[in-house]
Amino acid sequence: MTAPRYERVVVVGVGLIGGSFARAFKAAGACGHVVGVGRDPKNLETAMSLGVIDSSATNIVEAVCDADLVLVATPVAQFERIFAAMAPVLRPGALVTDAGSTKRDVASVARAHLGAVLPHFVPAHPIAGAENSGVTASRADLFVGKRVVLTPLAENVPRDVMRATAVWEACGARVSRMSVEEHDAVFASVSHLPHLLAFALVHELAQRVDAPHLFRHAASGFRDFTRIASSHPEMWRDICLANSDFLLAELERYVASLEPFREGLKAKDGETLTKLFGEARAARARWLSGTYDA
Amino acid sequence: MTAPRYERVVVVGVGLIGGSFARAFKAAGACGHVVGVGRDPKNLETAMSLGVIDSSATNIVEAVCDADLVLVATPVAQFERIFAAMAPVLRPGALVTDAGSTKRDVASVARAHLGAVLPHFVPAHPIAGAENSGVTASRADLFVGKRVVLTPLAENVPRDVMRATAVWEACGARVSRMSVEEHDAVFASVSHLPHLLAFALVHELAQRVDAPHLFRHAASGFRDFTRIASSHPEMWRDICLANSDFLLAELERYVASLEPFREGLKAKDGETLTKLFGEARAARARWLSGTYDA
Repeated sequence: MTAPRYERVVVVGVGLIGGSFARAFKAAGACGHVVGVGRDPKNLETAMSLGVIDSSATNIVEAVCDADLVLVATPVAQFERIFAAMAPVLRPGALVTDAGSTKRDVASVARAHLGAVLPHFVPAHPIAGAENSGVTASRADLFVGKRVVLTPLAENVPRDVMRATAVWEACGARVSRMSVEEHDAVFASVSHLPHLLAFALVHELAQRVDAPHLFRHAASGFRDFTRIASSHPEMWRDICLANSDFLLAELERYVASLEPFREGLKAKDGETLTKLFGEARAARARWLSGTYDA
Repeated sequence: MTAPRYERVVVVGVGLIGGSFARAFKAAGACGHVVGVGRDPKNLETAMSLGVIDSSATNIVEAVCDADLVLVATPVAQFERIFAAMAPVLRPGALVTDAGSTKRDVASVARAHLGAVLPHFVPAHPIAGAENSGVTASRADLFVGKRVVLTPLAENVPRDVMRATAVWEACGARVSRMSVEEHDAVFASVSHLPHLLAFALVHELAQRVDAPHLFRHAASGFRDFTRIASSHPEMWRDICLANSDFLLAELERYVASLEPFREGLKAKDGETLTKLFGEARAARARWLSGTYDA
């Protein structure tokens, strides 16, 4: 299904993700006019001057009432307010999608506040972050080849799930689907836990009296391992709170999985350590080569 | 102190580190002839054809008897054999250094096997790894701006510590000093622990029945966090065994440091989580900007 043209696209939250979506969707020739909505007029001015959006609005009700397509790309904490404001004024044919990193909370807020619009809201999680944030870091090719996970709701109109798929594909993404629950479980393992572990390592070292001495000797391995500890604290607070049950379960599981490593160290059991390291390395190599299933 | 010229330099173990040392030292005009010593004639041939070394030898005794400077850059597990072979034949004025990642074990093997040569062996740890290994990955600029930690022995002749400093500085490195014990403690925190944690995460996910599904959704944060889980299993076995006591202590400390994160998740305490994440992020930013001491 190719993306039909959406005359009026509204992007709520014009940061890295919202801005890149606007750029990509325009570059694909899939839309007429992009309205950027946000609370910071200066940011919207920047987005205008970069050509990311065609016009801007700070009043969400006015902005979305004529929209054919709405992307909500603000922090998830703002979704309640945004959904409540949008619900009464959206046109019947409008399609809504989002870019939140957790989906159970988004689905729950949508069910509470979208009312009659709910069937047309297809939740999405584009797996395309970057160290840099903000509209100045946005790029038309941010989603090219990246995965976007749709988590359709039971209430969704199937046609809208197809439309949402086509919208994200128009941005260059590879779209896959899972349930809201499955999404949060998968990302607790492969994303939320590593973030927590990286934050914890940097935090632990920073507490020590000899922290400057320790950091002075940290090198590229440490730099890459802790890159995600430079992520935005408020965003990760929201993700951790929204997914706390799954994340806690992952954390327990991870700490338990350290046991054979600890035993190997205690017993100075080189064979066990080599086996553990070798299996991890081999799994990562399969992952990198894209042959994990094989 | 500028590096005096060393006419005959012997590099035992011509891989990434040994090969880069040879290239850098030659580029600095600090040596006449570089002999590469190794057990794999094919690797030595490659090193010759790349111009990394000027001649090669598989017999270490013959190679080192005329040496002015010897770098031992093999896995640490081979140091005992190499030191024992070198000790009886080295010339009195020869300087010896190494590139081992752990130093208590190296110092202990040196004391047991270097005999009269011990005062001239200045242990070193160049903090310059790379994902790629082998002589084909070696580069003349591998050490430029990188740290090399010397861990002088009480038995060292002070002049040799100065000579070793000048040798590594000639390769472009920033040389610092600490004791053998302190070295192993520092690197247990900033290097060995992160490696263990990364190996453990990949290993844990790889064990699951839905591993392919999980890995399919792992993205750039996961890739960087786990990059060091692609490190060489035997090398990391040796490091973990040599430093098992300090590494175990770091692991306990780290698991304990996860507690406030776990409590924050359990209590859904957003304020605590934001504070922990924010402190970690700020510490990492100070580290990256080189202003940690400030």
